[in-house]
Amino acid sequence: MQEIENQKKRVMLTVAYDGTAYHGWQLQPNVTTIEGVLNQTLSELLKEDIKVIGASRTDTGVHALGNIAVFDTTARMPAEKISYALNQRLPEDIRIQKSQEVPLDFHPRHQNSRKTYEYKIYNHTFMQPVYRLYAHFFYGALDLEKMKKAASYLEGEHDFKSFCSVNTVAETTVRTIYQIEIVREDCMVKIRVTGSGFLYNMVRIIAGTLLEVGRGNMQPEEIPAILAACDRTKAGPTAPACGLTLVSYQYL
Amino acid sequence: MQEIENQKKRVMLTVAYDGTAYHGWQLQPNVTTIEGVLNQTLSELLKEDIKVIGASRTDTGVHALGNIAVFDTTARMPAEKISYALNQRLPEDIRIQKSQEVPLDFHPRHQNSRKTYEYKIYNHTFMQPVYRLYAHFFYGALDLEKMKKAASYLEGEHDFKSFCSVNTVAETTVRTIYQIEIVREDCMVKIRVTGSGFLYNMVRIIAGTLLEVGRGNMQPEEIPAILAACDRTKAGPTAPACGLTLVSYQYL
Repeated sequence: MQEIENQKKRVMLTVAYDGTAYHGWQLQPNVTTIEGVLNQTLSELLKEDIKVIGASRTDTGVHALGNIAVFDTTARMPAEKISYALNQRLPEDIRIQKSQEVPLDFHPRHQNSRKTYEYKIYNHTFMQPVYRLYAHFFYGALDLEKMKKAASYLEGEHDFKSFCSVNTVAETTVRTIYQIEIVREDCMVKIRVTGSGFLYNMVRIIAGTLLEVGRGNMQPEEIPAILAACDRTKAGPTAPACGLTLVSYQYL
Repeated sequence: MQEIENQKKRVMLTVAYDGTAYHGWQLQPNVTTIEGVLNQTLSELLKEDIKVIGASRTDTGVHALGNIAVFDTTARMPAEKISYALNQRLPEDIRIQKSQEVPLDFHPRHQNSRKTYEYKIYNHTFMQPVYRLYAHFFYGALDLEKMKKAASYLEGEHDFKSFCSVNTVAETTVRTIYQIEIVREDCMVKIRVTGSGFLYNMVRIIAGTLLEVGRGNMQPEEIPAILAACDRTKAGPTAPACGLTLVSYQYL
């Protein structure tokens, strides 16, 4: 008799989480990470040794509405049912929004994609406690028109070496930002950045630089020279992690 | 020589908090409450025994953007400076939004006022973790038009005996609801209720009843009979505390 082997399939998860309690995405010894929790919970659920590959290795305290992870499995559970079964076992601060089968050669980081991040600043005399884990607090006046002007210089294809951590390991620091939208909704200022890809700490350094512009410590017209310098020390500080949310990944 | 006594003044605080970690507003032995933390922190700051009187004694897990508390003090610190000094000492999940002097006979509950509460329902297949402490999760379809129709029967002056906890102690269960607004913003359904005053659990029972209508378990046209019955068992269940936020108090 012929034995029928279970077929291997690749599954893509859309992963949402509150990053407050996690040491970021990436697996590390002795601390709790999103990747670690996913590996462990998937391995228990599917009774296989599962290792996910994440699209974005978000930092400690950064949140996600839709990060992406893929893994291979020979389990018979249909891909689209995995989200339901996994959510039964995951802690409340991680929720799979969707699970679906993708081609076996699909890699979440080697694929053309459009990523959207949002950086939130609560801009009022005092913080509202319910936002304290999801927005950066800044009480001074912010000139949104200047921030928008500064942001417009960052749109397009540029070498973003001045806007990434000095520890960045990347073949090239050239990236394309499709759009930076800045809106105020009551006391919340939202900086929404969409691009082809982002360097380490890039969105937080963009937010920190736009804050410097908003409060009048930098002028929008300085941005081209900051880009041209290819020197991290020329841009503004890295804004705190809690204000950052990975909103969505769109594969093209 | 004549000794000049410090004059007594009454101070009103606008208090915002994330209710997640608290056993509600009201002072109780052996548990942490908003009132308890305020009394202790104010007493330390002003070096007097301070006891606040709250406008709304919110339940465990209920949040506030603007609850009201008053207290008397003979301290010389100007009333409007107290917010800054107090916020330096309070835990991050409580923030005074404003402090101001009010007349000595001002009582936060014996005054004509307009209170606004918001009940949030996250309505999607799976919860978004960043909203889990601030919204109730419901995955089924909700008919907003039916919910709005049901809500319209609750507007105006009614005996809300069917819409309050059986443990309610109140001279009368007649209250006036000025408006109930129901809006959907993406996956978030917001029920915003403005009234002259609310009975114990009233907004959560209204939300629970409107949820029953939205999912089709009750019809909008049943609301007048539920009101007329003056019987708690006729209305829907009490919706969970985390979805409720006290938005504002407005003294008329």
